Amino acid sequence: MNRRGILIVISGFAGTGKGTIVKGLLSKYDDFALSVSMTTRNPRPGEVNGESYFFVTKEEFEKTIKEDGLIEYASYCDNYYGTPKAYVEEQLAKGRNVILEIEIQGALIIKEKFPDSMLLFIMPPSAKELKDRLTGRGTETPDVIAKRMRRAADESEGIEKYDYIVVNDTIDKCVEDTYNIIEAYHMRPVFNEDFINTVRQGLKDINN
Amino acid sequence: MNRRGILIVISGFAGTGKGTIVKGLLSKYDDFALSVSMTTRNPRPGEVNGESYFFVTKEEFEKTIKEDGLIEYASYCDNYYGTPKAYVEEQLAKGRNVILEIEIQGALIIKEKFPDSMLLFIMPPSAKELKDRLTGRGTETPDVIAKRMRRAADESEGIEKYDYIVVNDTIDKCVEDTYNIIEAYHMRPVFNEDFINTVRQGLKDINN
Repeated sequence: MNRRGILIVISGFAGTGKGTIVKGLLSKYDDFALSVSMTTRNPRPGEVNGESYFFVTKEEFEKTIKEDGLIEYASYCDNYYGTPKAYVEEQLAKGRNVILEIEIQGALIIKEKFPDSMLLFIMPPSAKELKDRLTGRGTETPDVIAKRMRRAADESEGIEKYDYIVVNDTIDKCVEDTYNIIEAYHMRPVFNEDFINTVRQGLKDINN
Repeated sequence: MNRRGILIVISGFAGTGKGTIVKGLLSKYDDFALSVSMTTRNPRPGEVNGESYFFVTKEEFEKTIKEDGLIEYASYCDNYYGTPKAYVEEQLAKGRNVILEIEIQGALIIKEKFPDSMLLFIMPPSAKELKDRLTGRGTETPDVIAKRMRRAADESEGIEKYDYIVVNDTIDKCVEDTYNIIEAYHMRPVFNEDFINTVRQGLKDINN
């Protein structure tokens, strides 16, 4: 019996390893697909259209909004960012779990529009560990790190709105924990309507 | 950090192996406790007070109702059945998951009073398998089996009200699946308030 995919939103502070966990899920398990966002910002060196983002003009983006072609979108630093609907729905119907890596505002819109979606917040083991990881990268100035830590403090106010947290202590363990949470979510009745109806019909048939 | 226990309601048709699964959870994992119901019905041979049930008089039961000492109760075949509150709350506070083996009416009352509780419905792999199991026991008359199958058909109407279903194909696998669903549920923010607040406070401290 075909089982429906789950729409999974993954959020977390910069530096918690969100991206690595998403990559881990995609490479380790084959029933996952990553949603590619649409944006009006310019591609950075190395970014490939259709992989990193779908790069479009402002006119194209606004046309997609009007046609109700986006699940959610937001404007950030004078650029639009959004989640195209067609790809997500196609993958879910195929039984694949679709991952959206977005922030809390988008996450809450998703939950409202898709009550069966699952919101997951990746946590660092501690605040100190988060700072150490950001510092350890060696690519960010102290100013940027301080800004990210302030942003993390703000974002932490919304954690309770998520369905689940996962602690990223070691990547492999975190990928596995995340996968287990998703597998458990698959056992919600809404994802097993075919099976439930088959058993129900079988009981009726036996009784008649 | 102490983690709060989960109040778990387990329901399922007669013959799905509910009792065996509950026993499996209790014997395999040590963070579980089984709630013992209170009843006014007479003990059957071999039933031990405080293990099978707390056997009380009608007057004692009604006194407990008045004192708000029951989480839920129902009257069935002229006898009262209920879940004493004190034991459940004591175990949850100790971080143990408390299992209640009750039917849908009670389950829905629990969910209303304890929104963080978890309702689990054990499913047979198929209607035919359920009938085979009931027949295979060899202890029930065809009449009783027919009655149980009709009851199962009625009960199947409420499955969608449960948080999760688990399919009992083989006992060991089903116990493990159930445990995994419970472990995943532990990662809901409400069961991790201490941890979330510690990280949040840590972020604030670093920023000051």
